[in-house]
Amino acid sequence: MGSQSNFQMKVVQGEFGYVLQDVPHLSDYISDLQTYPNPLRSNPAYSVVKQYFVDMDDSVPEKMVVHKDTPRGVHFRRAGPRQQVYFASDDVLACIVTCGGLCPGLNTVIREIVHSLDYMYGVTKVLGIEGGYRGFYSKNTINLTPKLCNDIHKRGGTIIGSSRGGHDTTKIVDNIQDRGINQACIRLYLTQQQSEISLSGILLAQVYIIGGDGTLRGANVIYEEIRKRGLKVAVAGIPKTIDNDIPVIDRSFGFDTAVEEAQRAINAAHVEADSAENGIGMVKLMGRYSGFIAMHATLASRDVDCCLIPESPFYLEGKGGLFEYIEKKLKENGHMVIVVAEGAGQELLVTKNEEDASGNKLLQDVGLWLAQRIKEHFAKQTTMPVTLKYIDPTYMIRAIPSNASDNVYCTLLAQSAVHGAMAGYTGFTSGLVNGRHTYIPFNRIIEKQNKVVITDRMWARLLSSTNQPSFLGPKCASVSSPGQPGTDDKVTGLLGCLTPKP
Amino acid sequence: MGSQSNFQMKVVQGEFGYVLQDVPHLSDYISDLQTYPNPLRSNPAYSVVKQYFVDMDDSVPEKMVVHKDTPRGVHFRRAGPRQQVYFASDDVLACIVTCGGLCPGLNTVIREIVHSLDYMYGVTKVLGIEGGYRGFYSKNTINLTPKLCNDIHKRGGTIIGSSRGGHDTTKIVDNIQDRGINQACIRLYLTQQQSEISLSGILLAQVYIIGGDGTLRGANVIYEEIRKRGLKVAVAGIPKTIDNDIPVIDRSFGFDTAVEEAQRAINAAHVEADSAENGIGMVKLMGRYSGFIAMHATLASRDVDCCLIPESPFYLEGKGGLFEYIEKKLKENGHMVIVVAEGAGQELLVTKNEEDASGNKLLQDVGLWLAQRIKEHFAKQTTMPVTLKYIDPTYMIRAIPSNASDNVYCTLLAQSAVHGAMAGYTGFTSGLVNGRHTYIPFNRIIEKQNKVVITDRMWARLLSSTNQPSFLGPKCASVSSPGQPGTDDKVTGLLGCLTPKP
Amino acid sequence: MGSQSNFQMKVVQGEFGYVLQDVPHLSDYISDLQTYPNPLRSNPAYSVVKQYFVDMDDSVPEKMVVHKDTPRGVHFRRAGPRQQVYFASDDVLACIVTCGGLCPGLNTVIREIVHSLDYMYGVTKVLGIEGGYRGFYSKNTINLTPKLCNDIHKRGGTIIGSSRGGHDTTKIVDNIQDRGINQACIRLYLTQQQSEISLSGILLAQVYIIGGDGTLRGANVIYEEIRKRGLKVAVAGIPKTIDNDIPVIDRSFGFDTAVEEAQRAINAAHVEADSAENGIGMVKLMGRYSGFIAMHATLASRDVDCCLIPESPFYLEGKGGLFEYIEKKLKENGHMVIVVAEGAGQELLVTKNEEDASGNKLLQDVGLWLAQRIKEHFAKQTTMPVTLKYIDPTYMIRAIPSNASDNVYCTLLAQSAVHGAMAGYTGFTSGLVNGRHTYIPFNRIIEKQNKVVITDRMWARLLSSTNQPSFLGPKCASVSSPGQPGTDDKVTGLLGCLTPKP
Amino acid sequence: MGSQSNFQMKVVQGEFGYVLQDVPHLSDYISDLQTYPNPLRSNPAYSVVKQYFVDMDDSVPEKMVVHKDTPRGVHFRRAGPRQQVYFASDDVLACIVTCGGLCPGLNTVIREIVHSLDYMYGVTKVLGIEGGYRGFYSKNTINLTPKLCNDIHKRGGTIIGSSRGGHDTTKIVDNIQDRGINQACIRLYLTQQQSEISLSGILLAQVYIIGGDGTLRGANVIYEEIRKRGLKVAVAGIPKTIDNDIPVIDRSFGFDTAVEEAQRAINAAHVEADSAENGIGMVKLMGRYSGFIAMHATLASRDVDCCLIPESPFYLEGKGGLFEYIEKKLKENGHMVIVVAEGAGQELLVTKNEEDASGNKLLQDVGLWLAQRIKEHFAKQTTMPVTLKYIDPTYMIRAIPSNASDNVYCTLLAQSAVHGAMAGYTGFTSGLVNGRHTYIPFNRIIEKQNKVVITDRMWARLLSSTNQPSFLGPKCASVSSPGQPGTDDKVTGLLGCLTPKP
Repeated sequence: MGSQSNFQMKVVQGEFGYVLQDVPHLSDYISDLQTYPNPLRSNPAYSVVKQYFVDMDDSVPEKMVVHKDTPRGVHFRRAGPRQQVYFASDDVLACIVTCGGLCPGLNTVIREIVHSLDYMYGVTKVLGIEGGYRGFYSKNTINLTPKLCNDIHKRGGTIIGSSRGGHDTTKIVDNIQDRGINQACIRLYLTQQQSEISLSGILLAQVYIIGGDGTLRGANVIYEEIRKRGLKVAVAGIPKTIDNDIPVIDRSFGFDTAVEEAQRAINAAHVEADSAENGIGMVKLMGRYSGFIAMHATLASRDVDCCLIPESPFYLEGKGGLFEYIEKKLKENGHMVIVVAEGAGQELLVTKNEEDASGNKLLQDVGLWLAQRIKEHFAKQTTMPVTLKYIDPTYMIRAIPSNASDNVYCTLLAQSAVHGAMAGYTGFTSGLVNGRHTYIPFNRIIEKQNKVVITDRMWARLLSSTNQPSFLGPKCASVSSPGQPGTDDKVTGLLGCLTPKP
Repeated sequence: MGSQSNFQMKVVQGEFGYVLQDVPHLSDYISDLQTYPNPLRSNPAYSVVKQYFVDMDDSVPEKMVVHKDTPRGVHFRRAGPRQQVYFASDDVLACIVTCGGLCPGLNTVIREIVHSLDYMYGVTKVLGIEGGYRGFYSKNTINLTPKLCNDIHKRGGTIIGSSRGGHDTTKIVDNIQDRGINQACIRLYLTQQQSEISLSGILLAQVYIIGGDGTLRGANVIYEEIRKRGLKVAVAGIPKTIDNDIPVIDRSFGFDTAVEEAQRAINAAHVEADSAENGIGMVKLMGRYSGFIAMHATLASRDVDCCLIPESPFYLEGKGGLFEYIEKKLKENGHMVIVVAEGAGQELLVTKNEEDASGNKLLQDVGLWLAQRIKEHFAKQTTMPVTLKYIDPTYMIRAIPSNASDNVYCTLLAQSAVHGAMAGYTGFTSGLVNGRHTYIPFNRIIEKQNKVVITDRMWARLLSSTNQPSFLGPKCASVSSPGQPGTDDKVTGLLGCLTPKP
Repeated sequence: MGSQSNFQMKVVQGEFGYVLQDVPHLSDYISDLQTYPNPLRSNPAYSVVKQYFVDMDDSVPEKMVVHKDTPRGVHFRRAGPRQQVYFASDDVLACIVTCGGLCPGLNTVIREIVHSLDYMYGVTKVLGIEGGYRGFYSKNTINLTPKLCNDIHKRGGTIIGSSRGGHDTTKIVDNIQDRGINQACIRLYLTQQQSEISLSGILLAQVYIIGGDGTLRGANVIYEEIRKRGLKVAVAGIPKTIDNDIPVIDRSFGFDTAVEEAQRAINAAHVEADSAENGIGMVKLMGRYSGFIAMHATLASRDVDCCLIPESPFYLEGKGGLFEYIEKKLKENGHMVIVVAEGAGQELLVTKNEEDASGNKLLQDVGLWLAQRIKEHFAKQTTMPVTLKYIDPTYMIRAIPSNASDNVYCTLLAQSAVHGAMAGYTGFTSGLVNGRHTYIPFNRIIEKQNKVVITDRMWARLLSSTNQPSFLGPKCASVSSPGQPGTDDKVTGLLGCLTPKP
Repeated sequence: MGSQSNFQMKVVQGEFGYVLQDVPHLSDYISDLQTYPNPLRSNPAYSVVKQYFVDMDDSVPEKMVVHKDTPRGVHFRRAGPRQQVYFASDDVLACIVTCGGLCPGLNTVIREIVHSLDYMYGVTKVLGIEGGYRGFYSKNTINLTPKLCNDIHKRGGTIIGSSRGGHDTTKIVDNIQDRGINQACIRLYLTQQQSEISLSGILLAQVYIIGGDGTLRGANVIYEEIRKRGLKVAVAGIPKTIDNDIPVIDRSFGFDTAVEEAQRAINAAHVEADSAENGIGMVKLMGRYSGFIAMHATLASRDVDCCLIPESPFYLEGKGGLFEYIEKKLKENGHMVIVVAEGAGQELLVTKNEEDASGNKLLQDVGLWLAQRIKEHFAKQTTMPVTLKYIDPTYMIRAIPSNASDNVYCTLLAQSAVHGAMAGYTGFTSGLVNGRHTYIPFNRIIEKQNKVVITDRMWARLLSSTNQPSFLGPKCASVSSPGQPGTDDKVTGLLGCLTPKP
């Protein structure tokens, strides 16, 4: 599955450097599409407001920190309901699929897509594709009704199941060919449901895909294939990543809940450490390539003495190394707490070149490894026996229901996606940009991963809060951020800057 | 205490309609101020990054939804550390005061001001003014050390106490005069502490004031008086309002925690209602003039059938009234849940013209009143006896510690305030604007209250989620929002639009 | 509804003063009843143990604190499965009804009755009577299946609804007469369900009644009427009272959960009080006639300075009164926390002679009254203005799901009730006595209320923990408990001992 | 450290088979001890009750399920304050030590010993021995004051630290010899504190030892050594074991909290399993030799399909084995949840004969092992790929503060221990027996471990709740419990009954 797009991004230029990175629209490749007045016009909740619909020209800037003379820069299309929609409600068949690992809020997103389609737009045919991408061709589907979904936001997990991988484009396309169907892309997804829902004549569909960067790369391929075939199918993504590693957007849903729940593990680690002589409490948190959860959980807790993330390489032995710092902290306070993101220090572990079904590099468990190394190190020193307690709360964090803040956030994300698909947009994700809901083209979402910028102020705040060493030699300082803090320029090449071991 | 400012806002104009509403600076009224290199330069956490400091030209736009040809509009100064500071660390005496009702996060803000002053800037003389404004002249102060404050963020409330009112400018000024001190405004705050901390020669001070709009109007008066006297005292505010009714900023700290905790009460109301025949669960939430907590708690919960807020007048009897809606819901579902903000429907209650010590109009308890009215109404109908359970979780919500998200937020607010005061800014609050930390002049913060715009989409989402009536006659629809949703234009005159009672 | 029993208790005497207060059995008034081998014999879970069934002679002593030469005293029949049952599984129709106020654990009890009947005994016809006693004659019933009940223990409340009162014996009997049914008492309960479940020939039934003392008095009347008519209907009660005011049993289900949840309100009251000058936090807890929740919540919290319960009269003014104590505490600590049970101090309030539908005396809200009196008292004193925050968490406590401990407890209570009814016992409640599950005759459960013995050590522990005054004059001390602490002799006449007001 | 006692138990016989297993008393080996009136006589909280003190003849039966003609059996001395005490408050030096792993409630016990000694008995010299037994000779001590301990019950862990092992009797005795002190055994514990607290002339001491069975065996040795030397030192134990594996007592403190907290992990495992295809959620819970936590957590949750405990051997492959059962469950439900106690299935793992510092056999991590075996097994089968998520919440459970129920329980345990030591009892633990607080001689507490009786009804209830196989061949059934369920006869020899693997 490639991450390169076959279609160019739609870009609009404006005055004083204004750039709009627009999202695709069905009318880009289908001509003479019929439009309908938005059913919301007659909705009592909306009808009291005359100008309820989003102005077609509304856009939201990506860059917020500006100077008096800065050009205006990139903008995204604002999300929300449009005056006209491109689907007749009765004709729409919508599918929802959730892919990848669990994340608080999945059920809220599902619930709100279903409710919005039904209560706002009168779309009643909504299918849940079971068990991730492979559910499109090998599993049952679930008929998602507002009633069925009514209380699911109070439960963790996803009621339609999820899995990694399974995005076999060939299989999907073969499946299409076998059936000799030309327009009804959706039928291929529904082989086992045909009898239940009469599909004859359905030419209109919406596909809602909830997943991380791998999943969204897959969604982009699906969108492009659909476009190539000229199908009237809108493909909308909702970025899902508990790690917060999706670019452009402010934060991913579930992140807030995850950071909150992580406090529980950090508190426990602190109590265990504090009650033992030379007690070390270690907590492993999610974060395969990005240390956001670890960083925010550390900043929120204030009990953490060291936070290790993938973006900030570290070393164990010698001057400025982790062991030295641990020894110092234990001498000062008698105990310490370490938070380690799952992707931290991978370069220190012996590498196995394996990948999981989503194409993620299979990581060794850095928590178990690090715990072992620390125990061994201090066991060699007869003077300072340590007691290390290791906590891995990963699945306890992923599986909880979303908190109130994430519930509201998921609701708006889902509603935005539905408004967008109904309005004929496709190949987009809904996403929060600088506090405003927008439509972002797939290209921008999948082009790179969001990472903690360790030369940015947020990481400096963390260092200042924990007083941990930066594990950087002095030369590295010059690889610094430009005049504007807050930029998310990725810092590369830091690995070479590590102070050599003695 | 007036809310009018005697000093004009500093405004900078730029290209394409760019406007910077700047904050005052000590150098605006004191000439020849000495500057010092920022001590953060030698802080190991910060020193790895060369260009750590905020560029003096960085600013953040207030308005986010723009068109291709929209002028750039109002901006605020970006918060953060500056290259130069205007205080020598050893000379600074800082005071912190918390005013008004409790709000989750107060202790976190206090902790972070103290820690930032000490660990970042080496300022060790920090006083907590006990019990709100009146603590300046009638109470003890507390010596706030980093150690004392280390765990306070895990506790609700405020360790330095709070109270309403007490902002007696005359008393404060008399107190100053009596002592014959000209510059050392701070001494007046310290009558009972003089022996403990040697104040001789202190000419430099910082005052951190944490409170709501009444408190910040008071802070503005203090700032103006200090400015009139030419004292080198920086006055920094941190907006505190659990109701989220402060304008300009994205949200106030503690709001997130409050909405989360409110779920507990709503869940209980739902269970009580659901277990009784014609059960009504009613929850009163905070919101004297603004219904944000009620609105967000309703959107997060999904169990609420009716949400009543101050901004949206309602009526009880007749067609389209509350009683009719309750009856309809009970017939449909056998139970219902009502959330009512404390300031809702005040126009329906018999008015007593009283104010509390903060100058807030004393409200009658709308929850008790409404519960009584509903009971009476349905008692008259022999056909439908109802069981109403009323829950007022106000103090249980206010008193909890802040959640992880608010903890991080409070930390950054406090750090921004400290960076700003050290850099010589005064008469400002720190505040989050469109996701970026900024300095906002007092004038903008106190000019009006932030309110739910009931012709905006967020309220439409709520109406759509609860299906409650809008309580508006059709004519009112024309008082609608302009082309750009998301604007916070206040809607006035709605009271006259109520459908007349039959 | 009388509380006197028309049938004498079955009593068995044994050696050394042994007394067994037995429960009635269907064979007491129906001769030649057929018995069947217990279906559990072939249950794989039970079949591995040969002697699984409870020995018919097993009994549990009521009195635990004994001397070398004490007679053995009263015993109860041990609960559990018997070798023989008196119902053929296919013939049984079971009904469950929940009455009175909510209590954590109701749904767990319902779930476990349904699951035990089905999985252990193969009884599949289980009806939920909706909305309390009146549901027997005026409401629908719900078909309770194991699947329907599978997750209900995670929800608060009761899925079959509840109400106060409605125990109209005449209506019930009339209803029976109208139908001209002689044996099938159950038919009368099922008027609206007849078509759904074929009842022809059903002569065998079990009624499970979950409620407090009023409800169980009603259950006793039902049992006696059924016995008078010679019907083969087993009536089993499960005592439900969040107040823990049922005699004989160790504690009622939900009590533990309630005490736990009450901590939340007490903590909030403590924070509010601590953050204000002369702050008083007051929490009202359940306890109409018995102060157990207040007492245990106080002992568990350690932040409470004064606990007021119905059993311990108090007075406000003068020496040794509450006002004096409050003033003393505020002077010492600057704040205080008061816990007041809803039935405390009722003799101080102006009496209205009203009752609710359960026949409970309508109490005035002592919390609001006391808060008002305290505010007034200190408002008169210009020297000590107080800030009082009043919290009433009642419905937030009642409505939560039961905690793990109560979940296990409810499970065993329900299983015991099912074993007992299947074994032909009737007119009994299941109940925990000294840590063992037993069958207790209705007579013992409804003869009086369980109360806090204020001359017992538990209350002394509380007084010692809070240091509050005893509100007792010295003369009262002689009304003391006998040699054995732990007895539950009710103390009466204390009201006359109050120190006269000055 | 031997577990055999050198002193015979004190036994009193009475009528009808009454037996009192009494605890030792200082007067057993020291003659002419002076007694004092109990200071509680003048305590306002207690003085209102004339007969407050426990009658010297009060006792509590061990066996609760009796027949009409059963002999009365073993009794324990009832705990509580006595008329006379054997220590003058000013002369007492008390020490508290906590040993072994963390358990919710440790801090509450410490707090209440300190508060009871001070507020009830006026004993102000209380030392915390830091870091477990070895703290007696190698560490500092902490001066425990009521103020210092005031809020510690809200924190998890133990403020005086804990450790395994360190009970070096020789070292302790050598230490005594070196100092040439004859009576003041306590001095040896206080080598580093002598200057702080004047010990001259202290001949009277109380040692409070909080720990599990290993710790209490150590306490017994200390008691015996003290007795041999004729020292006036009371040794009181408080049984601490999160596993609930202490015999005689109803339950150990912290157990309730642990079972409650375990629900969180089980819920997460259920969500993870339910959201994946053939999802298996596995939770490892504490329980080295006893499966009480696993059993109760399973009964409380109702989401568990299989519970594996040390007492019930199981096997993986073949008919009736775990793999077969997993496959069956996955086919039925698509997911399953397994709870495994840490000591379960140890006989299946390759044995390493190692012990930890407490003398506990070092167990291999059965959770990781079992997870691996299950994954391997189903990986071999291409037809049923499983997704297994393994959660180990051990340290998150141990480290939380005790819940309300455990708080009250810990309070009473601590108060009982203090009353007992003041009354001159020694060599005892306080403990709850059938709901009453008693004093139990060390001999009974350390003679064996409390275990789940898998032929008892509680385990049958669990099997019935999970429907898991018994893993027992039919022959084993004959190793059944006698006529009285509820007895705790240990069942041995079950290992041989396993159905042979195919």
